[in-house]
Amino acid sequence: MTKHVHGGNIYTYKNCLDFSANCNPLGTPESVKQAVRDSLEYMKDYPQVGYAPLKKAIAEYEGVASESVICGNGAAELVFSLCQAVKPKKALIPVPTFAEYEQALTSCGCEVEHVLLREEEGFSLQDSFINWLHRDLDMVFLCNPNNPTGISIDREFLFRVLRVCREMDILLVVDECFLDFMEEPGRYTLKAQLSRYHNLFLLKAFTKRYAMAGIRLGYGITENTELLDAVTQVTQPWNISVMAQAAGIAALKETAYVEEGRQMVFREAKYLKEELQRLGMEVFPSEANYIFFHGPENLFEICVEQGVLIRDCSNYSGLRKGYYRVAVRTHEENQELIRAMRDGTTKAAVAHAEVLKEEEQA
Amino acid sequence: MTKHVHGGNIYTYKNCLDFSANCNPLGTPESVKQAVRDSLEYMKDYPQVGYAPLKKAIAEYEGVASESVICGNGAAELVFSLCQAVKPKKALIPVPTFAEYEQALTSCGCEVEHVLLREEEGFSLQDSFINWLHRDLDMVFLCNPNNPTGISIDREFLFRVLRVCREMDILLVVDECFLDFMEEPGRYTLKAQLSRYHNLFLLKAFTKRYAMAGIRLGYGITENTELLDAVTQVTQPWNISVMAQAAGIAALKETAYVEEGRQMVFREAKYLKEELQRLGMEVFPSEANYIFFHGPENLFEICVEQGVLIRDCSNYSGLRKGYYRVAVRTHEENQELIRAMRDGTTKAAVAHAEVLKEEEQA
Repeated sequence: MTKHVHGGNIYTYKNCLDFSANCNPLGTPESVKQAVRDSLEYMKDYPQVGYAPLKKAIAEYEGVASESVICGNGAAELVFSLCQAVKPKKALIPVPTFAEYEQALTSCGCEVEHVLLREEEGFSLQDSFINWLHRDLDMVFLCNPNNPTGISIDREFLFRVLRVCREMDILLVVDECFLDFMEEPGRYTLKAQLSRYHNLFLLKAFTKRYAMAGIRLGYGITENTELLDAVTQVTQPWNISVMAQAAGIAALKETAYVEEGRQMVFREAKYLKEELQRLGMEVFPSEANYIFFHGPENLFEICVEQGVLIRDCSNYSGLRKGYYRVAVRTHEENQELIRAMRDGTTKAAVAHAEVLKEEEQA
Repeated sequence: MTKHVHGGNIYTYKNCLDFSANCNPLGTPESVKQAVRDSLEYMKDYPQVGYAPLKKAIAEYEGVASESVICGNGAAELVFSLCQAVKPKKALIPVPTFAEYEQALTSCGCEVEHVLLREEEGFSLQDSFINWLHRDLDMVFLCNPNNPTGISIDREFLFRVLRVCREMDILLVVDECFLDFMEEPGRYTLKAQLSRYHNLFLLKAFTKRYAMAGIRLGYGITENTELLDAVTQVTQPWNISVMAQAAGIAALKETAYVEEGRQMVFREAKYLKEELQRLGMEVFPSEANYIFFHGPENLFEICVEQGVLIRDCSNYSGLRKGYYRVAVRTHEENQELIRAMRDGTTKAAVAHAEVLKEEEQA
């Protein structure tokens, strides 16, 4: 069994340029690093239980009440603690999607039903998804835009799912971790629905928006105070480190940096899609800061040999060999990715032709 | 309901000298802070899943196999994930003890049975504890030395508990987080029993040994690989931050620092016990880096007014108003604690006498 196989494994593939994890291409803001340096003075102290100042800063940033915010040691911790709090018996997820939803659900003994997102339907959630909802379900996870495809969910349809879930007493968890890198996040976020839908929980991360995956900080928003209490009960009191609290407060002030990263992603996603198509890859219309495509079955190995790490998506439930995800990075880095793929596949083609020739001659 | 009321709340009691959390009095080693600074370069990257280098360093330090080690976002995370993995129906804990065992157990729907440690028996675990063990129990938590009392468990008796637990198929979790500050840790640790007792899980922390509570890092040791797999399954893959992994590896090299901290604790614990007794407090024979005692019911408020934060233990299950815990700190700091208590209680006594006098005259 391969547990926990994810992008960002720069530890096995040392010295590779990493396109397998999807963060703001500008890297961690200097102000955030400085906040961590400054916090070292308090490294001896326990973190503030309830992290009120961080919560307040998030609430102001999101335009919600402090009482609606909960933080996690990365959004991934919240996926697990949500499941541990809800103790669902049955849950529904579309696949392919972020593997941790299923991992967290099954670790709680939950039975997971799957809706397959089909390639012939552009990996997008179909209206028929509504028919998969039923009263025995306790939870539904939706990732918008989806990981690894970058495909978004139609706003009106999402409202419909939300309404039906409320009628059926199903908790809808919408993972908006990559929403910041869409052109119009405001068109997709369900934030405005929180007050009317207490069956809604939104997941957000600092990881991608501010390129700070290493320090672990994510958050959730809901107006379901009973649910927040339950999540708090299954979580240790000191889950957000002193450093992460300081980093988060500093990061939220970095509005110009976020906008600069977004604009870079828009330009570079266009460039990467065109270049990948030129290389003969089948590119899907991702709206996120990563590109999902289909290509040769040995492309992962070819890229590693060329010093570039891409995300082989074959271990996603619902996918198979030949699907890949690459992060959108700076122009120079993206050029290097394309160079590596071109050189690598050309080299492989030449080698293959030589083998064929030798076989012919033999 | 008062959730999560613990020591170390320096955020509410700002500018107080903190005796409510128990860490190495020497503060965080500079090398550990430097390791965090150096790790900021990698803040944009996801932490290494499985944290192999940190695990290896811990394994070497402890003289166990890497495969027997599991890390947590603080030992407190492991308390919760252990319970989430084992899903116990019934558990037994002596009280008073660290509140998170019960919090974690009940959050999993576990029924918790309690054995009261009695003041008239010096708050020590009695032989009769064996009679409380029964086959319906899934887990037992023991803290050695106990928090908040600092009282240790007799080695031979601990072996007996371990054997009976194995016979009855009960997981015994022994929290050795404060063992490093006992005079002879080797006499108390159950490490040597791990290979023979797969029903044994030892909890350890970096927090206290290296005064690094803020960055969150703890670990567990067991040779029960099935249990380790189960704990891994209920935990997100990136629970140990890049910074904590770097800090942990640096900390384990700080052997002279740990010994210096220990020697300071031995000297200062003696000083504090004598001075507290001189102030009329009833001092219990703690063997850890904190002192447990009984004093006036308003001592917490008296100390805060004098700029010193102590741990009011009245919210520990099994205790009531008048019990306190203070950390052993540097000599100057401990002198300040004693000064604050003396001045504060004297002032309170004078005020009380004046009230009595006024009442008499009225």
